[in-house]
Amino acid sequence: MNQDYIKPDNWSIIEEGFEKERVKSSESLFSLGNGAMGQRANFEEKYTGPTFQGSYIGGVYYPDKTRVGWWKNGYPEYFAKVLNAPNWIGINVLINGETLDLNTCKNVQDFRRELNMQEGWYTRSFKATLPNDTIIEVKITRFLSLDHDEVGAIKYQIKAINQDSAMAFHPYLDSGITNEDTNWDDQFWNTTGVTTDGSQAFIEAHTMKTNFATCTFMESKLFHNNELVLEKPLEALSETTVVHQFKKDIKKGDTLTLIKFGGYTVSTNHKPNELIMAAKKVLQKVTEIGFEALLEQQRISWSKIWEMSDITIEGDVKAQQGIRFNIFHLNQTYLGRDSRLNIGPKGFTGEKYGGSTYWDTEAYCIPFYMATKNKKVARNLLTYRYNHLEKAIENARKLGFVNGAALYPMVTMNGEECHNEWEITFEEIHRNGAIAFAIYNYYRFTSDYTYIPEMGLEVLIGIARFWHQRATFSTQKNKYVILGVTGPNEYENNVNNNFYTNYIAKWCINYALQELQKVKDGYPDDYHRIIGVTKLTEKETEAWAKVAKKMYFPFDEKLGIYLQQDGFLDKELIPVKELNQKERPINQKWSWDRILRSPYIKQADTLQGFYFFEDHFTTEELEKHFDFYEPFTVHESSLSPCVHSIQAAKLNRMEQAYAFYLRTSRLDLDDYNKEVKEGLHITSMAGTWMSIVEGFGGMRILDDKLSFSPRIPKQWKSYSFKVNFRNRILKVKVTENETTFDLEGTDEMSIRVNGKRVVLTAGQKTYSLVN
Amino acid sequence: MNQDYIKPDNWSIIEEGFEKERVKSSESLFSLGNGAMGQRANFEEKYTGPTFQGSYIGGVYYPDKTRVGWWKNGYPEYFAKVLNAPNWIGINVLINGETLDLNTCKNVQDFRRELNMQEGWYTRSFKATLPNDTIIEVKITRFLSLDHDEVGAIKYQIKAINQDSAMAFHPYLDSGITNEDTNWDDQFWNTTGVTTDGSQAFIEAHTMKTNFATCTFMESKLFHNNELVLEKPLEALSETTVVHQFKKDIKKGDTLTLIKFGGYTVSTNHKPNELIMAAKKVLQKVTEIGFEALLEQQRISWSKIWEMSDITIEGDVKAQQGIRFNIFHLNQTYLGRDSRLNIGPKGFTGEKYGGSTYWDTEAYCIPFYMATKNKKVARNLLTYRYNHLEKAIENARKLGFVNGAALYPMVTMNGEECHNEWEITFEEIHRNGAIAFAIYNYYRFTSDYTYIPEMGLEVLIGIARFWHQRATFSTQKNKYVILGVTGPNEYENNVNNNFYTNYIAKWCINYALQELQKVKDGYPDDYHRIIGVTKLTEKETEAWAKVAKKMYFPFDEKLGIYLQQDGFLDKELIPVKELNQKERPINQKWSWDRILRSPYIKQADTLQGFYFFEDHFTTEELEKHFDFYEPFTVHESSLSPCVHSIQAAKLNRMEQAYAFYLRTSRLDLDDYNKEVKEGLHITSMAGTWMSIVEGFGGMRILDDKLSFSPRIPKQWKSYSFKVNFRNRILKVKVTENETTFDLEGTDEMSIRVNGKRVVLTAGQKTYSLVN
Repeated sequence: MNQDYIKPDNWSIIEEGFEKERVKSSESLFSLGNGAMGQRANFEEKYTGPTFQGSYIGGVYYPDKTRVGWWKNGYPEYFAKVLNAPNWIGINVLINGETLDLNTCKNVQDFRRELNMQEGWYTRSFKATLPNDTIIEVKITRFLSLDHDEVGAIKYQIKAINQDSAMAFHPYLDSGITNEDTNWDDQFWNTTGVTTDGSQAFIEAHTMKTNFATCTFMESKLFHNNELVLEKPLEALSETTVVHQFKKDIKKGDTLTLIKFGGYTVSTNHKPNELIMAAKKVLQKVTEIGFEALLEQQRISWSKIWEMSDITIEGDVKAQQGIRFNIFHLNQTYLGRDSRLNIGPKGFTGEKYGGSTYWDTEAYCIPFYMATKNKKVARNLLTYRYNHLEKAIENARKLGFVNGAALYPMVTMNGEECHNEWEITFEEIHRNGAIAFAIYNYYRFTSDYTYIPEMGLEVLIGIARFWHQRATFSTQKNKYVILGVTGPNEYENNVNNNFYTNYIAKWCINYALQELQKVKDGYPDDYHRIIGVTKLTEKETEAWAKVAKKMYFPFDEKLGIYLQQDGFLDKELIPVKELNQKERPINQKWSWDRILRSPYIKQADTLQGFYFFEDHFTTEELEKHFDFYEPFTVHESSLSPCVHSIQAAKLNRMEQAYAFYLRTSRLDLDDYNKEVKEGLHITSMAGTWMSIVEGFGGMRILDDKLSFSPRIPKQWKSYSFKVNFRNRILKVKVTENETTFDLEGTDEMSIRVNGKRVVLTAGQKTYSLVN
Repeated sequence: MNQDYIKPDNWSIIEEGFEKERVKSSESLFSLGNGAMGQRANFEEKYTGPTFQGSYIGGVYYPDKTRVGWWKNGYPEYFAKVLNAPNWIGINVLINGETLDLNTCKNVQDFRRELNMQEGWYTRSFKATLPNDTIIEVKITRFLSLDHDEVGAIKYQIKAINQDSAMAFHPYLDSGITNEDTNWDDQFWNTTGVTTDGSQAFIEAHTMKTNFATCTFMESKLFHNNELVLEKPLEALSETTVVHQFKKDIKKGDTLTLIKFGGYTVSTNHKPNELIMAAKKVLQKVTEIGFEALLEQQRISWSKIWEMSDITIEGDVKAQQGIRFNIFHLNQTYLGRDSRLNIGPKGFTGEKYGGSTYWDTEAYCIPFYMATKNKKVARNLLTYRYNHLEKAIENARKLGFVNGAALYPMVTMNGEECHNEWEITFEEIHRNGAIAFAIYNYYRFTSDYTYIPEMGLEVLIGIARFWHQRATFSTQKNKYVILGVTGPNEYENNVNNNFYTNYIAKWCINYALQELQKVKDGYPDDYHRIIGVTKLTEKETEAWAKVAKKMYFPFDEKLGIYLQQDGFLDKELIPVKELNQKERPINQKWSWDRILRSPYIKQADTLQGFYFFEDHFTTEELEKHFDFYEPFTVHESSLSPCVHSIQAAKLNRMEQAYAFYLRTSRLDLDDYNKEVKEGLHITSMAGTWMSIVEGFGGMRILDDKLSFSPRIPKQWKSYSFKVNFRNRILKVKVTENETTFDLEGTDEMSIRVNGKRVVLTAGQKTYSLVN
C-alpha cells in the first residue's frame, strides 16, 4: 500500500529510476536545509511535469488574510504563511538549441537521487536523450552550507555522449514565484531591484506587509573538462528575473560544468540597504573557498552533528535509515542558533500548516534538542516563548481573559495567533500546558534553574492565571470543571472535562505556585521584580490553589479509568481493528460529525497525560489506560505512534512498540499518509528519537539522575545513542544481551539502570550489564 | 438605544427628514415585494452616499463557490446565493445640466417616505436645492403589481420651484450590477443582449452556472403638467446598460412626470427565447391599463389580502403598526402561488444568509399561511420539501447514512445543502424534525389527509430512517443517545443528548410508524406503492420502534427539569439580567468559546419542545421549565421572543408576554439588533403573528377543534384576528371584558373557549363571552 521506492541504505536516501508521479514526493524527501534556509529537491533545469517549487528562508513569512466561512469574535485577521522565496537554484540548460526538460526527453536512463545524510549533500544523475536525439549524461551535486548559512552551492555537470554539442547554461534568479498555499492569490513579494555585475547577480525583493527585505544572489562559473572558461556571460533581465547565459561548443565525450553559488541575505540579519553588499561579501568568501573545499567543510560540520546525535541500529537497515532520516531533517530544520526561529511542522520542506510554531515544539521536540545539543539550544526555544508572553496575554485578552492571563497561540510565527477554527483556536487550550511542562522538563534535564527566575516564572504566572480563569465552578459537582475544550485528540471538539486538559491545568497551577515559592526563597530580587510586573497578590494565588485542589476528573469506577472526557462511555465502543479498512483513514472517509461522535482517537490524549506525568501513576494504571484507549486510537496524527511506542515499550510489549516505532520513523519515507509530496512531518521526527531513547532505552530523569530500562526489539542486533546530560556525554549501547554505558570525561556519574543505582566512574567509564 | 425614526401610524411606515446614515436601514424597511420579485427602497435617481442596492427575482440564485477556513468531508461545494438582479428602477435626473443626487444637494427639505401597507405602495417626496441652486419638489410613487407580478411601476414627478428649468429624465436598465455578498468576487450575470425599441428597452442576461435567463425591461412616458409628451427619447447603449433620454424645458411652477414600468420575464416561467416577447406582452398590458388604474388594482388586491390576514389592535399604535408591518412583509415575500418558491429569511429585502429555505418555514411560517390563506398555500410549502426528498437522501448519504435516510438541508434553494459550518450543517439535525412536525401540523389544522399518502409518508420514512441511524446505543445507559448535535440554541455546539433533538427524534419515529399504519389501513394502493419505492421492511420499523422506545432524555431529579443537554448543570448559572449590559449582545461581544461554555440560550431550545408538544406536558411542567430556562435566554435570534411570548401568555404572565411581543413585532422597525440595513427578518414575522393568535388569543387545535384562551395585554383596548379553519372564516375580537367570535357562512361550528365547548351556530354567528 505504501510507497517503497526509496532504497534501504544505512546513510543515504536513494531513489533509482525516473517516475514522473514520484517527483513531488521526492522533492520533499530529498529536501535540504541548514537551519537558516531550505530548499525542496526541485530540479535546477526546466521541468514541465508536476512539481511543487519551494525555497524557504527561516523566519520570513507573510500574514495572509485569513479565510473563514463564518467569522467568530476573537479570530485573528491574519495567518502567517511560510513563504516560497525567490528561486536561486534555477539553471536552464540548452543542448544544441533544445531546452533540457526531463518531462519531454525521449528517454531518461539511470536516473538516481541520493541524499547523503552523513555528509549533508544531495546529488542527482541521469542519462537523457533529448527530443533532438542528443544524448547527455548529467550529474548535479547540491548542498546548503552549514558554515555559511546564507549560501547554497550547485555543481551541474554535463557530458556529451553521442555527438559534439553546442551547450548553454542559463543560471538565473527569479522572484516572480508563487505560493501554492494562498487564501486570496495575493502577491507576496515586491521586487525592487534586479542587477547584475559580471558573473554575479542580485534580486532585491521584500515581502508585502511584513516587509522582510531580501537579496537573492548568485554567482556562476563555467568549466570545460575541469578548466575554467573565462568568458563573461551574456545577461538578460526582466522585472523579476535575471539570467546569465554561458555557452560553449564541446566535443563528444567532453564535460561541461557549471558551479553556481546562490542564496539570500536578509534584513533580519543585515541592514536593509546593505543586503547586496552583504551578498557580495559572502559570495567572495565562498568563491574563494571553492565548491570542493566548501563541501569538505560541510562533511566536517555534519560529522560533528552526527558525532553527538547519531543513533545506530544494527541488523535492521530500514530502521537505521529511518532514524537517521529523522535526525538529519531535525538538524536541517533547527540548529538552535537563533532564538527568533522555531521548528515548523514541515520545516523547510513545504508550505502546509503555515506558521512555524505549534505545541509540538514543547511536547515533542525539546527532549531531542536537550539531549543532543548544548543546553543553550533548548533554552533558546524556551526564550522564544518568553519573548511572546505579551502577545500570549493579548491573545487571552481577545478571548475575554483579564489580569495578565496568557494563552499561547495554537500556531504562530511572531507570537500572534494564526489559526482560525474556533474548536482549535479557542478551545485546544491544553497547548498552554505544554509550554509550562517544557520549562519543568528543561530544568529537570539540564538543572539550569536560572531560566525560571529570569524568564520562566512570568510565563508560568500568565499560564496559571489563564487556567484559574478558564475553570468554572460546578455547584452540582462541588468541583472546578473545564468546559468546552478540544484535547490533543482533535477528533473530539468542544467537550467538557477532557482529562488531559484538566490534569495539566491543575499541574500548571501547582507548578507555578511551587516555583513562585522557590524563586521567592532563592532569588528575592527576581521575585520582587516579577511581583512588580505581574501585580500578583496572595489572594490571587490562593484562588489558583483552590481551583487546582478542587479540579474535577471524569473517572469510571467500574472500569477504573479516567475518561477522556465527560460522556465518553456513551459512545459505540467498537475497536479500530473491527473497522472496515476501506473506511480508513477516517479523516478522509468520514464526515466530521461521524468522527466526532465515534470513539476514535487521533493521537494520544489521556495517554499523553500518562506520558508527561508518568511518575504520577503506577504501571498498572498505565496498562489499564493503555489497554482501554489504544484500541480506539487511529493514529492519524504523525505525533501519535511515538508516545504509544514509548508506553508499549514500558509495558514490555516489544512487538507493538516496534510496530509503532517503524510507523513513526518511516512515516515519510514510506508515505503512510499519502501526503509526503506536501512536505515532511518534521516535529514528529523528534518523537521517533524519543521512541528509541525513552522507549527502547527507557531513559528518564528520576531523582535528578539519568535512569534507563533498556529493551531491544528482537529484529535488531544492537542500537546505540548518545545523551548530553548536564554537559556529560554518555553513550548507551544496547544489544540483546547487554547494555554498555560509555561516559566521556573524567568525573564519575551516578545513574540508575532497571531501578538499580550504578556509578560510572572516571576509571571505569564503560559499564556493561546483562539485560 | 434603538432607532425610533419611524413615525407611529396605524397603516403606514413613515420616515420624515433626510439623514444619510439612515438610508440603508430605510432601504430595508421600505422594501417592496409581490411574491415573485422584490426591490429594496433604493432611490431611482443617482445617489452617491452609502446605499445597498437590491433587486431580487424569486427563485433566481447563484451557486457561489463555498468559502471555508478548513475543509471538512461532507461540506457542500456551493452556497446558493440570493442574487442582486439587474436594475430596472433607475432614473437619472438632470436639472439644468446638473445630476440630481441627494448626497450632494445643498439642501434637502421635507424629505418623507411612506410605505402604505394598506394599499401596497411606496412614496418618497422632498424639496431639494441642487448645487446649481435650482430648487425642485420631487414626489415618487412606486409599487410592484400583485396582479401582474412581473411588473413594477414608478411615477417620478418634479416641480420647478424657483426658476424655469431644463429637465431631463434618463430612465435606464443596468445588468452590470454586483452582489455585496460574494465569496470570490465572481461575476454572477452574463449579459447577452441590450436592445431598445421606441420607448421600450430590454436587457437579456442569464446567471452564470445556474443559467436562469431573464429579460429586464422598461417602458417610460413623459408628461408635462399631466400632458403626454410624444417625443421619442434618445437612446444610449453599452454592454450592460440601456438608457432612454427624455428632456423638456419647463417653466417655474410646472411639473414634469415620468411614468416608468419595468420588471423581469424569466425562463422559469417562459421559454428562454421568448423572454422579450413576453416582456412586450406584459408591457402592452400594463401600459394599456395605465399607472393610476394599475395602482387601483393594487389597492383592491391588497384589500383582499388584508380582509383575511389583518390583525387590529386598538389603543396601542406602535403595536398595531408592528403587527401590520409583519403581515405586510410576509405577504410581500410569499403568496403561495408557486411551489418552487419558499420564504427566505430576508425575503426580498437583502442578500444575507443566502438560500431561501430554513427550518423557519416549517417551525414558524406555516401556521400563519395556514390560517390566513387557502390550504393550498401551506400544502405548496410541504410539497416543496417532498420535491426535495431525493436531495435530502443524497445529503444524508454524504454524511454516511444509508438506505434512504433523509437529512433535509439547513439552508437550501433547490434541495441541496448550502451551509458549511460543521456544527450547523452536520449537527443541527433537529431541522429534520420540524419538517415532519409541519406535516403533522398541516393535517391537524386543515384535516387534509391526502398529503400524507400522496407525498408526506415518504418524507416521514426518510426522516425516521435518519433518526434511527443517527441514534447510538449507550451500553452504559442502556438507552439510545444522540451524540454530537447542535440544538435550536446555536450557542451550544456538538453537545450530547440535546433534549429537544432527542424528543423530536423519538416523536418523528413514532409519528412515522403511526402514519404508516394509517396509510396501510386507509390507502392500501398508496401504501403498496410507498413500500415498493422505499423497500421498507417490518424488521426495519421494529428497529425504529426500539430506538424511540429507549430514547434517553437528560433529566435532573432534584430540579425536576429536562436538561437542555448532558452536563448543562455544570455551567456557571448566572441569569442574563445579572450580565453587564456592555457585554450584550454576547454574540458581538464574547468570543465563541465563552458563549459556548456559558449557559446562555440564543433562542427557545428545550422550550421549543414544550411549544411544539405542549399537549405532552402539564402547565406546571411548562412553568418549571420556563422559569428555569428563560432567565438564561438572551433572545439573540429573531425567532426567540415569539415562542416565549406565547408561553408567557399561557402562564398568564401578560407583562412579560407583551414585552416579548413588542420585541418580535418591532424587531426591524426599532432595529433591536442594529442590522436592519442588511434586510428584514421575514420568517420571524410569522412568529409575531403567532404571538397574538396563539399567545394572546390562545388558539390551539384540540380534539380536532379550534380552541381559544383569550387574554389581552393591559396596554390594549382590543385586538382582533381572523382564522381560516377548514374553509370556515372565524373572526375573533378580544377586549378587556369580552371576546367575540364572528363566524362567516351558514353552518355551525363547535369551538372551545377557555376549556368550555361553545357552538357557533348559523343563526347566532356572533358569540360573546366575558373574559
